[in-house]
Amino acid sequence: MDHFADRLIAAVQCRKNPVMVGLDPRNESLPDGLRVSDSLDFGKVAAAYRQFCYGVIDVVAPLVPIVKPQAAFFEQIGPQGMQALADVIRYASDQGLLVVLDGKRNDIGSTATAYAQGFLGSKGASPWGSDALTVSPYLGDDSLEPFVQTAVERSSGVFVLVKTSNPGGKRLQDLIVDGRPMYEHVGQLVQDLAKRTLGHGGYGAVGSVVGATYPEQLADLRGKMPNCWFLVPGYGAQGAGAADVAGAFDERGLGAIVNNSRGIIFAHARPEYRQRFGDARWQDAVAEATRQMIEQLRAVLPGESS
Amino acid sequence: MDHFADRLIAAVQCRKNPVMVGLDPRNESLPDGLRVSDSLDFGKVAAAYRQFCYGVIDVVAPLVPIVKPQAAFFEQIGPQGMQALADVIRYASDQGLLVVLDGKRNDIGSTATAYAQGFLGSKGASPWGSDALTVSPYLGDDSLEPFVQTAVERSSGVFVLVKTSNPGGKRLQDLIVDGRPMYEHVGQLVQDLAKRTLGHGGYGAVGSVVGATYPEQLADLRGKMPNCWFLVPGYGAQGAGAADVAGAFDERGLGAIVNNSRGIIFAHARPEYRQRFGDARWQDAVAEATRQMIEQLRAVLPGESS
Repeated sequence: MDHFADRLIAAVQCRKNPVMVGLDPRNESLPDGLRVSDSLDFGKVAAAYRQFCYGVIDVVAPLVPIVKPQAAFFEQIGPQGMQALADVIRYASDQGLLVVLDGKRNDIGSTATAYAQGFLGSKGASPWGSDALTVSPYLGDDSLEPFVQTAVERSSGVFVLVKTSNPGGKRLQDLIVDGRPMYEHVGQLVQDLAKRTLGHGGYGAVGSVVGATYPEQLADLRGKMPNCWFLVPGYGAQGAGAADVAGAFDERGLGAIVNNSRGIIFAHARPEYRQRFGDARWQDAVAEATRQMIEQLRAVLPGESS
Repeated sequence: MDHFADRLIAAVQCRKNPVMVGLDPRNESLPDGLRVSDSLDFGKVAAAYRQFCYGVIDVVAPLVPIVKPQAAFFEQIGPQGMQALADVIRYASDQGLLVVLDGKRNDIGSTATAYAQGFLGSKGASPWGSDALTVSPYLGDDSLEPFVQTAVERSSGVFVLVKTSNPGGKRLQDLIVDGRPMYEHVGQLVQDLAKRTLGHGGYGAVGSVVGATYPEQLADLRGKMPNCWFLVPGYGAQGAGAADVAGAFDERGLGAIVNNSRGIIFAHARPEYRQRFGDARWQDAVAEATRQMIEQLRAVLPGESS
């Protein structure tokens, strides 16, 4: 199989946009007809999540290159949720989408290897079969190595948290160490890992998570981490727009994928769509919101993928 | 239900020792008769993990206060592994053990809430039903709040990574910020959370993970974090002994639980036990290794629980 970073380049160029759709199912936000009245009936909720995510995937697979299921919402409903998660990953892959599992996993040594071997790689070797996994760096460089090694072995990817989109991310990430914020030290470490794991297109198997809510730092990190794909959260519901993420791309319009979760999957509840589509036509709202975001990003994208 | 920190005090005092047994099943390390020849037959491996962990729990439940299943090894084998994990947590609880799920989860806002509500609390509300969860702090203070809030609401606990036991933990955790290593800044944040969530016994619902492999820092943090239960990894296979963890306890012999995973659950493979017990009597080896660790710790413990 091709190198993950090259597959991501190809997928973005094929769809001509860098939109990532976040699959964050929440029972209370599901459209009428899918929402389960007893949220503690975990089996029913898991079935609803599966059906809902399949429905989102059906709509977005022809439009975008990549999706990002959020592990937390599936874990919230127990083992039946985990089966739904595995089914959703497989369904998305079968529809031709790349899949990043957002699990922010982290541990040391052979425990990190267990996470990596579990989540990364194609079905058969991996029971989950995701193309990439988000990883948290607090445990240090030796905790990242097992993820990197497995990613390389299995033509998969890793996205390491560098600068997150939440206000409190500053608390540790912006602490000044030797004249630079800590996230830059992490960014340097991640860039080194990317440089060690390059594909043909100039990007490594190790990317980073950099929030859209800090546009200046995002553009600055783009310059400092030339070999890292950026996974950019914070678009839409968290407040960032297309202008905020413009600095995340290289001159070819590559190097960043921009995630939107609630703004797309629960588009039927957005004020501007509620009247027009309502709950019954929630999939049309997903399509419309996806197309709108694609257009917004194309307007700020340089280069060949625009 | 009683406050988590008070339940932990009661459990340690009842068993008269602070030993935590880590449930880290690995197919290749299972005793003969349990090991599965095809490690990619995830259903069979999940069944073996369930049987093995039940067997460990049967032995250690009368001896120690608490166990710590490692999520990674169950996730490694997919959704069937997650069902085994849920079964193991329930079985341990049913045998009277406290259960800390070692998942090192971390995320922001409502996603963090989803993890917390999924994993923390008794069966019914939580499909997993663990008494506490390990959490990673890189995303900052607002990412910890949802875990803390759910822990308080559900009489559960959270252990935040502060100073980890691996060599590479230094890479970020020991960076100097304002004259102090970063882990002390994290420790201060965690101590503040503990102080806000006190039980009757002087400890909070928020504890921290502090490795046994740095004995001086461990003793120093004990002084600086008087209201935090410490979860201390690194004993046994990672090289630390009883003398190294002595500084983790308060004058009553409380305030720390010391984890041992491989050294206990795979004791049948330890050189000193291999001849005596072998694979067939692996549960006797688990019992012997547990008793040995209890004795080693009692020799260094001050106060009433010794």
